[in-house]
Amino acid sequence: MFKTVNEANAAVIERLKAARPHWVDVKTARDVIPELREGRTLLHAGPPITWERMTGPMQGAVLGAAKLEGWAATDEEAEKLAAAGEIRFIPCHDVNAVGPMGGITSASMPVIVMENKVHGNFSYCNLNEGIGKVMRFGAYDEEVLARHRWMISTLGPVLSAALRTMEGGIDVTTLVAQAITMGDEFHQRNIAASALLLRTLATAIIKTDCPKGACEEVTDFLARTDQFFLNVMMAYCKNVMDAGAAVGEGTIVTARPRTGRDFGIRVAGTGKQWFTAPVNTPVGLFFTGYTQDDANPDIGDSAITETYGVGGASMVAAPGVTRFVGAGGFQDALRISDEMQEIYADSNPMLLIPGWDFQGSPMGLDIRRVVETGITPLINTGIAHKKAGIGQVGAGTVRAPLDCFVKAFEAAAEKLGIDAWGNQ
Amino acid sequence: MFKTVNEANAAVIERLKAARPHWVDVKTARDVIPELREGRTLLHAGPPITWERMTGPMQGAVLGAAKLEGWAATDEEAEKLAAAGEIRFIPCHDVNAVGPMGGITSASMPVIVMENKVHGNFSYCNLNEGIGKVMRFGAYDEEVLARHRWMISTLGPVLSAALRTMEGGIDVTTLVAQAITMGDEFHQRNIAASALLLRTLATAIIKTDCPKGACEEVTDFLARTDQFFLNVMMAYCKNVMDAGAAVGEGTIVTARPRTGRDFGIRVAGTGKQWFTAPVNTPVGLFFTGYTQDDANPDIGDSAITETYGVGGASMVAAPGVTRFVGAGGFQDALRISDEMQEIYADSNPMLLIPGWDFQGSPMGLDIRRVVETGITPLINTGIAHKKAGIGQVGAGTVRAPLDCFVKAFEAAAEKLGIDAWGNQ
Repeated sequence: MFKTVNEANAAVIERLKAARPHWVDVKTARDVIPELREGRTLLHAGPPITWERMTGPMQGAVLGAAKLEGWAATDEEAEKLAAAGEIRFIPCHDVNAVGPMGGITSASMPVIVMENKVHGNFSYCNLNEGIGKVMRFGAYDEEVLARHRWMISTLGPVLSAALRTMEGGIDVTTLVAQAITMGDEFHQRNIAASALLLRTLATAIIKTDCPKGACEEVTDFLARTDQFFLNVMMAYCKNVMDAGAAVGEGTIVTARPRTGRDFGIRVAGTGKQWFTAPVNTPVGLFFTGYTQDDANPDIGDSAITETYGVGGASMVAAPGVTRFVGAGGFQDALRISDEMQEIYADSNPMLLIPGWDFQGSPMGLDIRRVVETGITPLINTGIAHKKAGIGQVGAGTVRAPLDCFVKAFEAAAEKLGIDAWGNQ
Repeated sequence: MFKTVNEANAAVIERLKAARPHWVDVKTARDVIPELREGRTLLHAGPPITWERMTGPMQGAVLGAAKLEGWAATDEEAEKLAAAGEIRFIPCHDVNAVGPMGGITSASMPVIVMENKVHGNFSYCNLNEGIGKVMRFGAYDEEVLARHRWMISTLGPVLSAALRTMEGGIDVTTLVAQAITMGDEFHQRNIAASALLLRTLATAIIKTDCPKGACEEVTDFLARTDQFFLNVMMAYCKNVMDAGAAVGEGTIVTARPRTGRDFGIRVAGTGKQWFTAPVNTPVGLFFTGYTQDDANPDIGDSAITETYGVGGASMVAAPGVTRFVGAGGFQDALRISDEMQEIYADSNPMLLIPGWDFQGSPMGLDIRRVVETGITPLINTGIAHKKAGIGQVGAGTVRAPLDCFVKAFEAAAEKLGIDAWGNQ
């Protein structure tokens, strides 16, 4: 038990800084997440949610996963199963995992295995499906399933074989520290990290005993998928934040996923308790043929990147992305990061941002600061169509709702004896 | 014949903008540069120079190349040959080529073949040797030669085979446009472009019929060599600048190489004529154990990057490099690019720099502006030890000497009828 909230927060941040997650393997989800071995179970993004309350893209992904797992032969059968309560839904965050957008993860899917070499905890995330019609954005037709079958048969096994040739796996911190100097903020822009990752993996892939054709397919997929690293980064951030959460005290936010209905946050001092509020809807730029009216409300576990302090918080690192998410030019990016720094307790000494005069990315989001300043965290996000089956329609930014921070603050205040000024 | 210098310069810049160099192949130097087939001929950086006037790193590279070509068995034999005038020296720039630092290029070396798909001209540059003891910085022992033999036996052939699987080769403009948003200025920082290049090549390398071991060695070398892209960029810039030079009029600088003694410039309106002045010595940061006293004066054809408008001119694109070359932080980088823009006539519409609020990199260095403003071009450069045999000892910045611009201005004024204010 720490004497003050500040001391507890310092202990959390010390662990965030010390964590060294390495990408050690790719395994089948059921082999590392025991909950997926029982009955028809799916992981989803956000705090707990029922089938009925899920928005279109998450429901679409459920239908796709049910078919992928062979629980249903048709969309109708899959929907019937879900509506009848025959599928158990568990938040990714409850099983050391994260998932982008719908976050739907099923037993057969390959997942990234991230190992914290300092604190020993593991985290998991499914693999990025690339662009176009993808399950995470709610598409679920045969094209989507075919890609998932290829990920199961080829992408997962080749990556696993390659990673196992690299002693200790990939030190993701080193790679991220390089990529943040190369214009990535790791939520909507991951091109540098994805290229550095392929650079790290290419020789290892050739070294495996995998068939030449499979190696070609995998390097080609990695070369075409600018956002491939997002899922690696999500597993990385989850790993770091779980290491910090283990302190069990203080007011640092350790998770802030969204279901498309609810924005949920967890705080170090209140453990696995969720504080929720209705999500906002992202505003941004839309692909040809789509408008703001098509946008699904905020969804996905990917705001784990902003929880760690990259993504929208590190907008200044990625002026290239501001245009993509409709957030203006370099000065706007600078203004956003300066504002975000107000609600984070510290700076990340590993992730220095050249365009911010080598200031570190924000670290340690403190609910006290959010409540005191009224500044809500900004999130860079992909935008899904609100209807199931369509997929991504744009990218933009969205603010976390203040209310979940207020609820968390009240609970923490009661538990920790914090006064209205955030002091103990 | 254009009516005004401005019109001529506009025609040059139009060609600079329209050029589309593609990296189409790697070939043995003698197969694409006929001059290397005759007797003992070596290419070198800079305007013409004799053996006696060469500085240490260039002389060291000559000894290495003489041994590599089998003209001499020992350093003593090689030196004797050179001193006796038995080796013919030709500037790279005279045979559509460029070479970093010493620029020594011999018949057996593999060279990048760059083809301008719009204007049809070709350019060449040797392959980057990686870090450590390397010939371009004047090292010439067995370790250096062993790497060159591997480049001849393995690196060149594998890259050639990979490039030939890619129809039309690699569109370098696209890659450069991406990499400039990722913190590269393409002279002292090429990590993003090198990673994107490997990303582009990886699948093609696997697709070749080359032995698996050779493919592994090549991807491993490319993955470890952050500056690999420098030589590609040099061939690219040479290719573009030669396309502009073909206009044959105006005051845009088309080349500005350095021998370690002389800084030479060529101008579109005066063709192949060199205007020279003594080089300055770069100032910067030194590797452990070395100091400013060890620095060789400015050397190499690599300032073709600044001729094109990247490198030191685009410092703001690469705030990460300012620390490496000892040029300060982000504000210093911004100040340098703002100053450089004063002496360039236009901006590059392809290479938008996010941290400069998406302003294009400077384009079209105009000798009139240099003479009028007294602002001399800044160059980001590696620093060679002044003695032969040692190699790179640091990195820094250096200014081009004003005097060669004044000489070029006087010659152009006479030829073009420009008055003292730079008007015709």
